[in-house]
Amino acid sequence: MKIEKVLIVGLGLIGGSYAKGFTKNNIKVYAIDRDKKTIDYAIENNIIIDGITEPSKEYLENFDIIIFALYPKTFLEFIEKYKSNIKSGTKIFDVSGIKKSLVPRINELLDNSIEFIPTHPMAGREVYGIENADENIFINANYIITKTEKNTKNGIELAKEIAKILKFKNISILSLDEHDEMIAFLSQLTHCIAITLMACKDSTHLAEYTGDSFRDLTRIANINKDMWTELFLLNKEHLVKEMNNFITKFIEFKDMIESENIQKIKEIMQISKDRRIHFNKEIGD
Amino acid sequence: MKIEKVLIVGLGLIGGSYAKGFTKNNIKVYAIDRDKKTIDYAIENNIIIDGITEPSKEYLENFDIIIFALYPKTFLEFIEKYKSNIKSGTKIFDVSGIKKSLVPRINELLDNSIEFIPTHPMAGREVYGIENADENIFINANYIITKTEKNTKNGIELAKEIAKILKFKNISILSLDEHDEMIAFLSQLTHCIAITLMACKDSTHLAEYTGDSFRDLTRIANINKDMWTELFLLNKEHLVKEMNNFITKFIEFKDMIESENIQKIKEIMQISKDRRIHFNKEIGD
Repeated sequence: MKIEKVLIVGLGLIGGSYAKGFTKNNIKVYAIDRDKKTIDYAIENNIIIDGITEPSKEYLENFDIIIFALYPKTFLEFIEKYKSNIKSGTKIFDVSGIKKSLVPRINELLDNSIEFIPTHPMAGREVYGIENADENIFINANYIITKTEKNTKNGIELAKEIAKILKFKNISILSLDEHDEMIAFLSQLTHCIAITLMACKDSTHLAEYTGDSFRDLTRIANINKDMWTELFLLNKEHLVKEMNNFITKFIEFKDMIESENIQKIKEIMQISKDRRIHFNKEIGD
Repeated sequence: MKIEKVLIVGLGLIGGSYAKGFTKNNIKVYAIDRDKKTIDYAIENNIIIDGITEPSKEYLENFDIIIFALYPKTFLEFIEKYKSNIKSGTKIFDVSGIKKSLVPRINELLDNSIEFIPTHPMAGREVYGIENADENIFINANYIITKTEKNTKNGIELAKEIAKILKFKNISILSLDEHDEMIAFLSQLTHCIAITLMACKDSTHLAEYTGDSFRDLTRIANINKDMWTELFLLNKEHLVKEMNNFITKFIEFKDMIESENIQKIKEIMQISKDRRIHFNKEIGD
């Protein structure tokens, strides 16, 4: 399946990075973004061929593949408003960080002739906007397809093709619920920890004493607060469960330290060490 | 003050990296390590000029500067056993990650003619031993001198000179207690969090889905369990206080998510974001 032309809706960091990656691979990229300056920037910098700010039927019907790189709620609003402008047979993709509270609602709105293949590129940066877009963030990163009963073999193959073009390493297929549970633990819990570490006391005077461990743990605290608040609340159930589990285990570990249970402390450290090995990237960890 | 010759006791990662840094700056480096193979390796690789495994009086009295790169308890044992082998007028330094439970005990043991300047280079790696020694870990890192009433102007100047030779960026002077409180928050708490994150459930099957945030937060979970257990317990009071504070704030944040208090969540995220800026390194963050 050869991809020749795509439409990207939303040219933020992820949409812009997709656009750069596709363009680099000689795919014709078009875009919709509500900000005219973003469209102008992307055209001037040869990131896209052309773009518009208002999703007209005449424009949308030129595309068989549309990728939505929007916040979940904005994506939902777009589909509610413009679904009738999307032509039959179009395959649409997203990049949303939560799935269960979004995907069924999108599918309910869409005509059966339009296939929605939900995907989540596990990559990002702590900076935003088209100016910071960088196709290299996808190299060796993980790409998740959350398959639903509405997906065809062709649709899934197309998602895989997108991942390959953008140089993702692992392509996985998960259910919506498996995805959201995993993301609550691996991504949302870690962001909650980083935020709490920065917020729990005014440590700014400590910056000149710090080693790398505190920097590593709090890098992601430089957070896009609108996006992450939306993501946390849309996955509240799983996230609160993971936070509670973490609190329980953290208190257990604190008790071991308080009671100087050296054997138990070392056991936990060994488990931690053994498991961490699995998370090393082949390159650049 | 020109340093011409030093003796390093303990050629692990930090001692070995000190040795490499000094040698690179044409300082004559000698070493004591109980492992003959380590000494042989360091001589063969031109990291030191010469070394021994047993700290004899004849050897020790050749040095005006001795740097102890040992675990705190091993350092204490060394001083207890060999203090009479150290000649009058010698200045000694350490690299220990805790100070209050160690420094006064060392000073009690030492003759007043020997000056102990406690220092903490805030650098490390998640690998160990002379084979992994790398003088570049000190570049732009922080270096802390924990001054006591026994320290002379000359002693402090010498500590600063060592930091400059090794290319540390910030040199700070703290009290023993200020150091231990700071280290409990910036370093020990973060290690406890990383360990708990890895230990709190078997997440190894999730590795293929992970993004960088989980990797960043758990990199330090690949821990030297003997050393860190020792450090945690020697600083138990401060560490448990910081862990309790973190737990309180983390639960507060969880409550905001559960009750969907969007305004409060965004406020905390903004505080977190604003503070994190202070921790950016000029190079390579």
